Amino acid sequence: MVLVKAMARIVMKFGGTSVANLERIHNVARHVKREVDAGHEVAVVVSAMSGKTNELVDWVQNAAKVAGANTASFFDAREYDAVVASGEQVTSGLLAITLQSMGINARSWQGWQIPIRTDNAHGAARILEIDGSDIIHRMGEGQVAVVAGFQGIGPDNRIATLGRGGSDTSAVAIAAAVKADRCDIYTDVDGVYTTDPRIEPKARRMKKIAFEEMLEMASLGAKVLQVRSVELAMVHKVRTFVRSSFEDPDAPGMGDLINPPGTLICDEDEIVEQEVVTGIAYAKDEAQISLRRVADRPGVSAAIFGPLAEAHINVDMIVQNISEDGSRTDMTFTVPSGDVAKAIKLLEDNKAQIGFDVAQNETGLAKVSVIGIGMRSHAGVAASAFKALAEKNINIKAITTSEIKISILIDGAYAELAVRTLHSAYGLDKS
Amino acid sequence: MVLVKAMARIVMKFGGTSVANLERIHNVARHVKREVDAGHEVAVVVSAMSGKTNELVDWVQNAAKVAGANTASFFDAREYDAVVASGEQVTSGLLAITLQSMGINARSWQGWQIPIRTDNAHGAARILEIDGSDIIHRMGEGQVAVVAGFQGIGPDNRIATLGRGGSDTSAVAIAAAVKADRCDIYTDVDGVYTTDPRIEPKARRMKKIAFEEMLEMASLGAKVLQVRSVELAMVHKVRTFVRSSFEDPDAPGMGDLINPPGTLICDEDEIVEQEVVTGIAYAKDEAQISLRRVADRPGVSAAIFGPLAEAHINVDMIVQNISEDGSRTDMTFTVPSGDVAKAIKLLEDNKAQIGFDVAQNETGLAKVSVIGIGMRSHAGVAASAFKALAEKNINIKAITTSEIKISILIDGAYAELAVRTLHSAYGLDKS
Repeated sequence: MVLVKAMARIVMKFGGTSVANLERIHNVARHVKREVDAGHEVAVVVSAMSGKTNELVDWVQNAAKVAGANTASFFDAREYDAVVASGEQVTSGLLAITLQSMGINARSWQGWQIPIRTDNAHGAARILEIDGSDIIHRMGEGQVAVVAGFQGIGPDNRIATLGRGGSDTSAVAIAAAVKADRCDIYTDVDGVYTTDPRIEPKARRMKKIAFEEMLEMASLGAKVLQVRSVELAMVHKVRTFVRSSFEDPDAPGMGDLINPPGTLICDEDEIVEQEVVTGIAYAKDEAQISLRRVADRPGVSAAIFGPLAEAHINVDMIVQNISEDGSRTDMTFTVPSGDVAKAIKLLEDNKAQIGFDVAQNETGLAKVSVIGIGMRSHAGVAASAFKALAEKNINIKAITTSEIKISILIDGAYAELAVRTLHSAYGLDKS
Repeated sequence: MVLVKAMARIVMKFGGTSVANLERIHNVARHVKREVDAGHEVAVVVSAMSGKTNELVDWVQNAAKVAGANTASFFDAREYDAVVASGEQVTSGLLAITLQSMGINARSWQGWQIPIRTDNAHGAARILEIDGSDIIHRMGEGQVAVVAGFQGIGPDNRIATLGRGGSDTSAVAIAAAVKADRCDIYTDVDGVYTTDPRIEPKARRMKKIAFEEMLEMASLGAKVLQVRSVELAMVHKVRTFVRSSFEDPDAPGMGDLINPPGTLICDEDEIVEQEVVTGIAYAKDEAQISLRRVADRPGVSAAIFGPLAEAHINVDMIVQNISEDGSRTDMTFTVPSGDVAKAIKLLEDNKAQIGFDVAQNETGLAKVSVIGIGMRSHAGVAASAFKALAEKNINIKAITTSEIKISILIDGAYAELAVRTLHSAYGLDKS
């Protein structure tokens, strides 16, 4: 009998809670050792110890205050990056030392050493290019590459960070650059669920979810992955696993190359038995603004939403009713509750230019979304949702739909009930 | 009347206690602002916040322990450097932000950005070369260069640190590279004193001290500056001021270009009225080892001191008496008290090879040193010391002399008395 050992190249990413102290870093090293011992080539991407980034951000924000600056939040994003990126620098070195002490060949890599080249948008930079040649070469020699997440180097030769949660994006980008077989995102949950298990205990962990679905889940508040990392994984077709860092690294099945415990985010082609609906997401603290009797003419949308965008107010769910007489219409949209006052003031300031009678608003709403690639080819998905909510006497305030998502705006008090109702209506609580 | 404004290029260095928190960093920024407002070009070198380096070093040392490594102190010096250098990275960014918020053009520079090129001796690297062109250019445009101290980049393209206290060396090296007119070392004392003021309240702050004298003071335990920084200042003739960071930055005289408060370490030519003796230094916890009836033949010193050097035992004050009959001699030397047992064991292990009758030792001793460039050209300096100590009934156990230093080994109980006695004997307590 000949045993053929399957070799793979794996990128493993560990977030802040997974590297919060030396004991947890040791636990991370045991996960890495398992994959190395199995003969795989491994790159590890680490975040800062949990709490560390917040501490550094606080220092940056307060440095100017202490000096008596007028604007409390003033700071140079390039200096912010130099300060905040130090957190990942520390964990990358500590993990390399821990791995070495366990007999594993390893070294740390800072963003500027690889290099991970970014644009100049310090504080929220985008990765432009990663030169994977050095770490591919080292991995080929059996050395684990321990990469500081969240950071790269800008065209100005200065450290650039990728925005909060950026280590997910680092990991997926590195996986794409080194042509990894898999990118494992280790986190404090053990996968992606059909809905939030804190609301619906019957929520099930999915085995697989398509990139597009995950993108909708992530952008709707399922905070497992940074949205940008999912986009990147989708573009480069990086098979990405979401799995737990807190399980025993040597438990049975943890080293399974094909089906490790967790949720695989992958191309829809890989998902053989496609469900019509795969998950229910929700976002609370939404607010609705309705402009009554808006002039129905070209350019009116730009007049409304331009100033809001400039003020960085995140507008969602835009509903425009067809006007009765063709001259006036009602325009409804949602914004985060915290931005309502600012938004109303902006609209009133531009009232003459926009042309509307009155701006009404309602806070304390929730958006519940039904997500599934399968609904592309199935009719009646929306109707099922409306029927299920109606049976529970939940009033629908607005509806928007996309190819793979139906979003429904309701009174926030019914958010949990609506999530459970829809979760059950689409049979997601049955394994 | 025409006022000519004197412009200068100044390097300012602030240690860990001076940047311990945001308030102190603001205070540092006020010192910098004073020099910028006076029209000077300024580079600032900063240490990590006090306590921070120790925390990082502890993590490095414990990372391997937590993973169950056999040797607790095992770690890769390159990873140590990546972790520990992060402390200076943080303060450099925070000071740049603080300066900016006070309206001062400033940016941070990491060692690898300048670059400060070092050798490959990670953890205790030596600076090989600094490319000062970028920061000279920026300073010329009115931008303050905030440089992370303690760090450079090795030939392996990895962060290399300079050893504890290395930020002093960074500052002097940068001052040499940018041809600064002055290098100001701001610290928690306000200058270099004729002796330790905690022992002799009449100790006076010196206005000037020659490089050679400071080198002896520093190596004898006056812990104001890292010894290596003084060597570097001497080689490159960098006029170096030791001054306090805790004085009011805007107090009268603080911005004096020629005579700011503090002690100037400079070439002896700059010191017009040279004192015969400029300072009294001391080191406690010394131990003496005497080898009796050592074979008086070529190579015996190497046989004794070779193994001690290999074991990193710092041997000082070596005294060899001329033998009576030309065949046997007594050899006496000092080591730190903590190393006595190890040293005796090494000597006994090599007894046959060295050839001696018995190894005696005495702990709890102190070395008191009289330092002064002037003693080169003055006879009787040593005799005065012996006379003064004899009058106080302080027994001298050993004596060594160099061109500018007399060191005397005594019982540790008399250390303070000896320091005060010598300080007075050479008239150092008279202003």
